Amino acid sequence: MSILAVGSVAYDSVRTPFGSAERVLGGSATYFSVAASYFSDVAIVAVVGDDFEDKDLQVFRERGVDVEGLERAPGKTFSWSGEYGFALNDCKTLETQLNVFASFKPRLLEKHRDAAFLFLGNISPDLQREVVRQVRSPKLVACDTMNFWIEKEFKSLLETLKLVDILIINDGETRELANEANLYRAGRKILSWGPRALVIKRGEYGVLMMNDKSMFGAPAFPLEDVFDPTGAGDSFAGGFVGFLAGSQDLSEAGIRKAIIFGSVMASYNVEKFSLGRLKELTFQEIQQRYRAFKQLTHFEDIE
Amino acid sequence: MSILAVGSVAYDSVRTPFGSAERVLGGSATYFSVAASYFSDVAIVAVVGDDFEDKDLQVFRERGVDVEGLERAPGKTFSWSGEYGFALNDCKTLETQLNVFASFKPRLLEKHRDAAFLFLGNISPDLQREVVRQVRSPKLVACDTMNFWIEKEFKSLLETLKLVDILIINDGETRELANEANLYRAGRKILSWGPRALVIKRGEYGVLMMNDKSMFGAPAFPLEDVFDPTGAGDSFAGGFVGFLAGSQDLSEAGIRKAIIFGSVMASYNVEKFSLGRLKELTFQEIQQRYRAFKQLTHFEDIE
Repeated sequence: MSILAVGSVAYDSVRTPFGSAERVLGGSATYFSVAASYFSDVAIVAVVGDDFEDKDLQVFRERGVDVEGLERAPGKTFSWSGEYGFALNDCKTLETQLNVFASFKPRLLEKHRDAAFLFLGNISPDLQREVVRQVRSPKLVACDTMNFWIEKEFKSLLETLKLVDILIINDGETRELANEANLYRAGRKILSWGPRALVIKRGEYGVLMMNDKSMFGAPAFPLEDVFDPTGAGDSFAGGFVGFLAGSQDLSEAGIRKAIIFGSVMASYNVEKFSLGRLKELTFQEIQQRYRAFKQLTHFEDIE
Repeated sequence: MSILAVGSVAYDSVRTPFGSAERVLGGSATYFSVAASYFSDVAIVAVVGDDFEDKDLQVFRERGVDVEGLERAPGKTFSWSGEYGFALNDCKTLETQLNVFASFKPRLLEKHRDAAFLFLGNISPDLQREVVRQVRSPKLVACDTMNFWIEKEFKSLLETLKLVDILIINDGETRELANEANLYRAGRKILSWGPRALVIKRGEYGVLMMNDKSMFGAPAFPLEDVFDPTGAGDSFAGGFVGFLAGSQDLSEAGIRKAIIFGSVMASYNVEKFSLGRLKELTFQEIQQRYRAFKQLTHFEDIE
């Protein structure tokens, strides 16, 4: 088993200007693992309630995702509802019900403790550290977080960052975490706290990666139809970590390729509600959009 | 004479979180022509008042910009004052005094009617068409506009767009002009109105170019110090049209290179107030940042 991902498996209700979806499969571990499954073996550690439906478990199984670490607890599955306006970068959360997720304490199966790649989805930084401690010798630890933890658990988050190789967050969170308006300076500050690289997600504007030696910027793919941005960030992370695990290439060139594969997965994900598009992809389609990214961004050298 | 640029020459007063500048040289024709001067011959058509100072005229002369078409009218020079917050993409206009610019009617000198490249800065679409009519056989017409004209002179703007090869506007204006929230669809709609290419400026997020055959996206250069975003869009346009005129390369590859040179000029421009950085550049520095853009955006092909 190459990648272990801890995070949420949820039921989402989403409204966009183009339609709505009620109680569909979602959650960070879900989007992450399905995206990563095109590149590498992946297992999830998460919790669902006794209302979790078998057809939703089937989505993981069809993509070969290891769900042995998906705990089933008495109660209801974590649920979230949100609404997007025409500016799809802005999302209004209507309701969050933690349910069984509120008392989630990830306990890793013995076989998962050998994971080479670890993805810490957006859970409390205390729990993120507990997961890291349970993995014997991870080759790479990637981590997500959000404004809630930056505001409520800042000190704990700093402790977690010491254990993280690559932090994957959005631009607003980057500025908030560093308490610095300039993104470049904010990034440098966060790098000084532990991570070897910072991958900043900028929604429809693309991605910026910073490490000690270089920066890499890529636009998002301009799409004619964006139906539902939910899970775009986690699909990105799944494609990104998935490619790194599959290729075992942690060089600068490998990380740049992984960022493009992450962007590919995010760009497909937003084309349909829930996992609609992500679960039915072919690897040929993934390669095709990678090449489209190359065409989108290529320009010639000067002498 | 290769490029003729019509637009404003102004006195700006600017406040940013990092300092302020009172009554400094600005205006669209100013930023455009100084940026373009590193790549090509450039002349401006604009108007100033009798308060316009000789030291400011000197800025153009030192960059070899042809100012014979800079009319001097009785009254005061166009002046603008604005304030930027920490989010430097947002600018609050405090005051605009059109002054001599209010009755500006561009009349081209005989020698300027042979211009090969024409840049229509952000003036009324009626005046933009009057300028186009006075130029005998331009090879390329590039045009800027703003929300004010989109809202007040929409029909006239559509007439102007029929005469324009490349429209250079920002993303908010793109959406407003097309009345369409999706940027891809908005761009396609605008292309159907005449322009052969659309260059969408996205501030700190970079640029997106669309034409009938392809799209090109480039991030902005992540900068440690952004002092004053004023004139970034016009510096971009100056580097962009300047490179096209200097290279005479209007191929897809040439347009992509030109977009990077435009981005280079914009990235330097914001490092100091007014023309402080733009007027003192060396061509070596310009090439250096072009190469840095290449490093910033390069990733490898897949088989």
